[in-house]
Amino acid sequence: MANELYHVVIVGGGFGGLYAALSLGNKPVKVTLIDRRNFHLFQPLLYQVATGGLSPGDITAPLRSVVRKYKNIEVLLAECTGIDTAGRKVILRDGEVSFDSLVLAVGAENFYFRNPEWADIAPGLKSVEDATEMRARILGAFEMAEREPDLEKRRAWLRFVVVGGGPTGVELAGTLGEISRDTLKDDFRRIRPEEAEILLVEGEDRILKTFPQDLSESAERQLIKLGVRTLAGVRVTQLDAMGVTIRGNHGEERINTHTVLWAAGVRPSPLGKQLTESLGAATHRSGRVMINPDLSVPGHPNFYVIGDLAHLERNGEPLPGLAAVAMQQGYHIGKVIEARLANREAPAFHYADKGTLATIGRQSAVAMFGKMKLTGLMAWLAWLFIHLMLLVGFRNRVLVAIQWAFQYFTFGRGARLITKSAIAAVEATKAAAQRSR
Amino acid sequence: MANELYHVVIVGGGFGGLYAALSLGNKPVKVTLIDRRNFHLFQPLLYQVATGGLSPGDITAPLRSVVRKYKNIEVLLAECTGIDTAGRKVILRDGEVSFDSLVLAVGAENFYFRNPEWADIAPGLKSVEDATEMRARILGAFEMAEREPDLEKRRAWLRFVVVGGGPTGVELAGTLGEISRDTLKDDFRRIRPEEAEILLVEGEDRILKTFPQDLSESAERQLIKLGVRTLAGVRVTQLDAMGVTIRGNHGEERINTHTVLWAAGVRPSPLGKQLTESLGAATHRSGRVMINPDLSVPGHPNFYVIGDLAHLERNGEPLPGLAAVAMQQGYHIGKVIEARLANREAPAFHYADKGTLATIGRQSAVAMFGKMKLTGLMAWLAWLFIHLMLLVGFRNRVLVAIQWAFQYFTFGRGARLITKSAIAAVEATKAAAQRSR
Repeated sequence: MANELYHVVIVGGGFGGLYAALSLGNKPVKVTLIDRRNFHLFQPLLYQVATGGLSPGDITAPLRSVVRKYKNIEVLLAECTGIDTAGRKVILRDGEVSFDSLVLAVGAENFYFRNPEWADIAPGLKSVEDATEMRARILGAFEMAEREPDLEKRRAWLRFVVVGGGPTGVELAGTLGEISRDTLKDDFRRIRPEEAEILLVEGEDRILKTFPQDLSESAERQLIKLGVRTLAGVRVTQLDAMGVTIRGNHGEERINTHTVLWAAGVRPSPLGKQLTESLGAATHRSGRVMINPDLSVPGHPNFYVIGDLAHLERNGEPLPGLAAVAMQQGYHIGKVIEARLANREAPAFHYADKGTLATIGRQSAVAMFGKMKLTGLMAWLAWLFIHLMLLVGFRNRVLVAIQWAFQYFTFGRGARLITKSAIAAVEATKAAAQRSR
Repeated sequence: MANELYHVVIVGGGFGGLYAALSLGNKPVKVTLIDRRNFHLFQPLLYQVATGGLSPGDITAPLRSVVRKYKNIEVLLAECTGIDTAGRKVILRDGEVSFDSLVLAVGAENFYFRNPEWADIAPGLKSVEDATEMRARILGAFEMAEREPDLEKRRAWLRFVVVGGGPTGVELAGTLGEISRDTLKDDFRRIRPEEAEILLVEGEDRILKTFPQDLSESAERQLIKLGVRTLAGVRVTQLDAMGVTIRGNHGEERINTHTVLWAAGVRPSPLGKQLTESLGAATHRSGRVMINPDLSVPGHPNFYVIGDLAHLERNGEPLPGLAAVAMQQGYHIGKVIEARLANREAPAFHYADKGTLATIGRQSAVAMFGKMKLTGLMAWLAWLFIHLMLLVGFRNRVLVAIQWAFQYFTFGRGARLITKSAIAAVEATKAAAQRSR
């Protein structure tokens, strides 16, 4: 495997890493793309797997086939446990890979603040497994309710709390509204799924804080139509198998529920801190790695950090943790490394904000394109179109489009499996609920 | 839930149980359909999930939505652990349900003869989890081979042994041939997937024993084209993480491999034996429950057994364990119970053999419709058409059709995820392999 070519190792096959690899396709460098999973996950649609609308296979693409046509790119299924910055080696759980340049694009992970134990009670939404787990919790709760004779206990099973009013939380809450009102409408004999109570809990004074005030308000109104109640300005102080305790200006409140979905926070992967410490570089208080405009770590031109793990500011504001940012930074890596190899100065990265959207449910969404603001049907159509176009792989695009069409016209959701492991999870919750009675 | 209506409890939501429930839809009886999973699984296509062609969601349909429009049918997500025949109660892991008539349709499970420990090494193919496990083992083996420098060890990772030359084994082996020759062709940089060696091991003197001699031979020839070597008349005597030992007329042979797929045998669910023992009824030596032509257990007109769990003979030959048989028996249950309630004599079940097919791969299959025998393209087209028509749910039909079209024209397979749990499995195999060095 002796190789004279300049070797770029990319860790992470998400939007940043995958597009960085593609930007180096057929360039005079050797590229190794390392990921612990064998597929690229289209995270923006993960909530639809969690709510039974799509199958994991529909929003994932095998990394190997995505980069197939570039013979200079090699994919390695391995877990990166550390970085030997001095020896220019990536440490794997079962081996190591040396590099000339490293692109770290490992993104973020679910974060439960000071309460890691909440993870077992309130699943987050970062991986395919997270999504199928959520799916089982949601569908399982309706099953439990159907079998629960006691009215109060049944109510608790039909109460869903989504923690976090960012785009993911809004999407989850909105879809839960649709599922209970439309999808499951006639599926049960003893409960009425429409009676499900969906609460969206947000710590800030309004949901979708990254959007302008009026769009937040529009989103809240659209959520109400779907039966979602928004509780802004309240924080979760307690979380267990029996429910959630929230504290706001009006004091504390206890909510009995067995299904809490976590969309409240993510934190940068620990690999970032590890890298900065060994390089003597700086991390932002957010935990993200501070980088130069050319995406390299200050003082270390051969170490690049992109995507959710990187902190770069644009006129005083940090770039948001969006797929669009990661993708554009990935593409930029190609230009930077080419420039470096030609001893030219590396170009600075400029984020082209193509707009931000958040979907809420059937025909409802909010969107912002520069100065233009959209709500309702128009925003929803824009969302549909953009996400279909961004989906990797023609096959996935068609499959997703068709399933969306079915959902739209039949109100049905087909991918409603409760997998074995997940049944266990639901029963664990139930057991816990019984214990704490 | 006091209910004056005659109560039919059906255990099992497979072909037998689901169609039995549907046959009683809107009839003057109360029906409870019990399954430990919330979906009906279209087992004949499970091997395509195992080989990355389809997603689990594409071949499953939520039981609740399938029976939705029949208000007299109730679905219960619960695990049946036993039957109180005297008290006419089904015992659940968390409760019980009493019945007037019971329809037991719990089918069969993977069977490893005297070697239950083989289950961990060679996954079978009965559940969605089995399929995703197999998928991970297969894709994982190619990943391991790509990373293995030693030639011999690499060969072992690229060697696949399918145990059992029935339709499932033939389908698995054939699809493995296609994957290595077409799907993964350009995905790797160090190995050539086309070099994968696929062995189909059959205990009988020929594969597809239930088909006529000439069709078996045709199938074997078609398999050779896909690079599958058939070893008939040999039995597996030893199975571990490092390989398989087979014994035939020419003595014993050791095959080094880390990927063994089990299609050699299933056995009736233990619930059958439990039922016959408590009823004092008879089980066939196959373990299946002997039943009357009206599908009831002899001497117990309110206990019915159908599908793979039932033993019924047609001119001296036992009915095969096919979806078609289970489906037709399910439909027949409606007629029988209606007759009983009207105090008419229950009609006898007659199996209408619409033909049997086994697919081998792209444009190759064998089929038998009465006297007519088909091979190659014609048999394959018949197989495609019939399976699409049988798929439950219009949505699934369209999704599967489209993915088949993609596979046909692009040679690609989209649902190639290795899920987390499964990665663990592959690494366990690898670890075992290293230990036993």
